[in-house]
Formats: sequence, C-alpha cells, structure tokens
Amino acid sequence: MPNSSPASFATRLNQAIADTGSVTCVGLDPRKASLPAPLRDNIQGDRPESWAAAYTQFCCEIIDVVKGIVPCVKPQAAFFEQLGPAGMVSLGEVIRYASAAGLVVITDGKRNDIGSTATAYADAYLGSPTHPGPWGSDSLTVSPYLGRDSIEPFVETCDARGGGIFVLVKTSNPGGGFLQDLKSGDQTIYQTVAGLVTELNTERLDADGYGPIGAVVGATYPAQLAELRQAMPHSILLVPGFGAQGGAADDVKPALDQNGRGAVVNSSRGIIFAHSRPEFAQKFGDANWHDAVRAATEEMNQQLRG
Amino acid sequence: MPNSSPASFATRLNQAIADTGSVTCVGLDPRKASLPAPLRDNIQGDRPESWAAAYTQFCCEIIDVVKGIVPCVKPQAAFFEQLGPAGMVSLGEVIRYASAAGLVVITDGKRNDIGSTATAYADAYLGSPTHPGPWGSDSLTVSPYLGRDSIEPFVETCDARGGGIFVLVKTSNPGGGFLQDLKSGDQTIYQTVAGLVTELNTERLDADGYGPIGAVVGATYPAQLAELRQAMPHSILLVPGFGAQGGAADDVKPALDQNGRGAVVNSSRGIIFAHSRPEFAQKFGDANWHDAVRAATEEMNQQLRG
Repeated sequence: MPNSSPASFATRLNQAIADTGSVTCVGLDPRKASLPAPLRDNIQGDRPESWAAAYTQFCCEIIDVVKGIVPCVKPQAAFFEQLGPAGMVSLGEVIRYASAAGLVVITDGKRNDIGSTATAYADAYLGSPTHPGPWGSDSLTVSPYLGRDSIEPFVETCDARGGGIFVLVKTSNPGGGFLQDLKSGDQTIYQTVAGLVTELNTERLDADGYGPIGAVVGATYPAQLAELRQAMPHSILLVPGFGAQGGAADDVKPALDQNGRGAVVNSSRGIIFAHSRPEFAQKFGDANWHDAVRAATEEMNQQLRG
Repeated sequence: MPNSSPASFATRLNQAIADTGSVTCVGLDPRKASLPAPLRDNIQGDRPESWAAAYTQFCCEIIDVVKGIVPCVKPQAAFFEQLGPAGMVSLGEVIRYASAAGLVVITDGKRNDIGSTATAYADAYLGSPTHPGPWGSDSLTVSPYLGRDSIEPFVETCDARGGGIFVLVKTSNPGGGFLQDLKSGDQTIYQTVAGLVTELNTERLDADGYGPIGAVVGATYPAQLAELRQAMPHSILLVPGFGAQGGAADDVKPALDQNGRGAVVNSSRGIIFAHSRPEFAQKFGDANWHDAVRAATEEMNQQLRG
C-alpha cells in the first residue's frame, strides 16, 4: 500500500461536482430487454457470457459519453449478479473502466453484515485512486438494519483507504416507510439512522465540512429530504428516485448545499435507456442510443442547474 | 423452464434435516489467513485468481466431508466478493458443487433493493433443482430495511421457482439491537418484521405447515429466539451465532419444532477452521484439516441431538 495519505472521499466527490458543474449520477442498471437493439442483436444464443459482454460494452460506451459531464456513476450490482458469475466479471470491468475515466464510482450493493464480514465488504468495495480495493470502486451503499457495530467496520476502511459509504436512511420506494417511518420515542427510525450517520462523520470532516459517511435519501419524499439535509449537514446525499420514479428537479434542490454541492442525484432508466423514452425515441431511436444518452444527461444537468 | 411445479423450499429443507438427522448448517466463510497450510502454501504470488482457486478447493473439499451428514451449507458472499470478480467465479463454482452434492444452499448475501432491482436479486439467487436460477442457489438471506414492497418480489420468485429466503429479524451481533430492539407502539422493530414474515407465509404453507419465508434469529439472544419461534410458527429459522460467537446447544433448542425440524443452526469458523481450534489442533493440525472438519461437524450434530 502507498505511504501517502488517501484523499478523502467527500473531497473527491465534491471536487468532481465542481469540475463538471453537475450533480448528476448516472445509474448503470443494465437489463436484457432494455438494451438498444444493436447490442441485443449481437447476442449469441442466450449464454450469460454473451449477455455479460453486452452489459460491459453498453456500460463502457455510456461511460465514454458521460465522462467529463457528470461527477459519478452508480453501477447497480443486482443486475450484474442476475447474470451469475459472468455478470460479476462484467461489473468488475465496468467499475475499472469508469474509474480509469475519472468518474467516482458508487457501487450500489446495499450490502452489510456483522463484524469481520462487514470488514470484508468494506475491503471489497471502498477505496480511492491511490488506495484501490479489489474491485476498484470508491464507495458502496450500506444497509443499517444490523446496527451501529455493522457500520463501524466500513468507517474504519473509509479512514484507511479514502473510500466512502452511503447509508440507507430514507429510501425512495412507496413502501419504504414500513420500518423507516416508525416512531420510537421522539424519533422515527430514519431519524435514528441519520443521527448515527452524523455522529460517525464527526472528527472525520474535510475542509468543506463533509465526512466519508454519506446517506441515501429518496427524491420521492421532498419534505424528508429537506429535513434530512439539515439533520446530516456533513453527509453527501445520494438521491435516487429522480425521473422515472417521479422525483422532479424542484424536489431534489433542497439536498444541495449553498455552493450547489453536497449531493448527487441519480437517474438510471431515464438516461441509459433514453432511446426508449417517448420524447427521444423518434429523434434518436436504438441506432443512435449514444446520442440519446448524451441528450438525456445534458437535459438532467440543465434541470438541476436551473 | 420445466412444466412441473417446483418443490417447496421448506419441504426440501425439512426433508434434508430428516434425511441427515442433523440441523447443522455449515457456513462457508473462506479467509486467506485461516486456510489450512497445505492450501495456503499452494498460492502462486498474491493473485486474486490463485486465492479464488484455493477458496474453491477448500470449500468443495469441505462439501465432500459434510455431504450426507448435514442438510445445508451457507456460503458467505462477502468473503468471495473480497477477492474481486475472481472470488465471485469461485462462489458460483462452490454453490454448484454443493447443490450437485445434494446439499440445500443458503447464499448469505443479506441483499435487498426496491422493485425490479429486488426481483433481479431474487432471480439471481432463489431456485430449486428443477427450477434453478443463474447461480444454482436455493435461497438467500434478505434485509428488511426497505420495507414490505422490497420483500414481495422475493416471495413471488419463491412461488415461481420453489426457492426460499431468510429475512433478517434479530441478528446475532452485540449491536444488533440498535434498530431491531427499538419499540414503536407495542412492538419492537424485530417483532414488526416477524409479523410481516408470518403474514407473507400465510397461504403458502406446505403439508407440515412451513412456508418459503424463513427468518434469521441469532443464537446469542435465547429469550428472543424462543419468542420468535412462537411468533413465526411457519418459518424455518436460520440461527447464526453458535460456537465461536457464544451460542450453546441449549440456547438454540427452542428454535426447533416438536419433530426436531424447522430450524438450522449455523457454524462457520468452528467447523471449517476446526484444525485451528485448541482442542483439535494437536490431534489433527493443518495436514489433517479434513478430519478436523469431520470431527467438528459430528460433534456439533451430537450436541444438537442431545
């Protein structure tokens, strides 16, 4: 391992936001049925290895389009795992390609476990360009159900490697409140998790006041998003639910700090499958899917700057 | 996909318990530093592919020892993921080898996500011999933080494929109560999750009264284990925390039903690294690590039958 101290994850991500003038996070969620026709047509038989190669090509070509105009990408592990082991080989290739292109990589795995098993996940997915882990990923989404001592091993790895995590606080799905909105004493469960996140960031703040423990807060609950921006002033927020899930630009602006940083807003389907969106289908279609990705990314950048 | 209806996961697992006369689940948690010396000594350099090959050999040789004397194995995804993509190729090989040996496979991934992403995880890891998924796994551990609508896609795949899930209810770690023990109204969070599990099993019961939605309840909280056995009468319980984590045979017996079924008790380190246990190290040592695995498995079987 290099002797130099790793650069803080929050510093790197906020710098990437400043460099690109964008808070758009492009979600890499490949799905067989949604791939553009030119990629689907290349599939030999129905072998996982063929689909995995198509996923790699699809995601790497998206990365070529969006690098330099967005700060980060978020590969969704589930869709790669759905192909079996060959899909995980593709995930590894996509992460390394994105990182080499200068994008911050948020691996969306919603992992967690206890003790040394949590350490294994942290070792797998947290890192930085100077202190990379086995996958070459910068950061990971992490579930809090197993409690404080399941989060702490990730925090230790953030310190050692310069990686980051995004703890699930308030998720974007309609049923997310089943546990998250339950009230115990004065606090909801999501507020309890937010309090833990803020506590863990203390003493780990960079010059801008951000720590390595980010939080997932859905765009689909704008009131809670504003509340949680206040409750977690040291966390970069990862905001899913924009676009296809219903969140609008005005809904997510409360996530940003006064400098327009401190949050990234994810869109997956709306960008990567833009060739199928009614308003883009006629103009671009499957054959010009790269142009549709570029147009959708620039549109989202514009909406979030407005 | 075959036309025949898949066999219920609970039926298959309880049958495996009856066939082997054992409720022991062998946790496959390979770790570089703990592998027996003959396997560590074979590593060429420090390449992930070399370690992955060692993990495959280690786990498959354990499977050769324990098949026929335990009903199931539980590979821990985190330790395979720690090796990067090569580790996931090893995980795939280990799952298929275990399944071909007639063992029920519980993939311990503590996965979950929302909507169609949860469906992707379910598609990846749930299945049965007649209706296998991409990994060849029977079942998956699942985190409930994202709520009811994140569990339902797994239930649908259980119905279609004959697979199962184990929802995290009360975990074995010291800090597990951080959220799980919080009380909202009359119920703790873990009781709320247990209620959801029982509700989802209803209308999915096999002839013995078990459904496909199992639950993880740690051996380290014996009082809650007895309480949760009552609260989830239709769930097979997956009980971690036995042995190295402190749970004893008397602690876990309340998990079993009157026929001695309805639960499996996991041990990882205590079995797979038995060659390092003080009481076994002198008798077996690294060279005879297979014999140590066999002795530890038979010892645990005996303790749980007593």
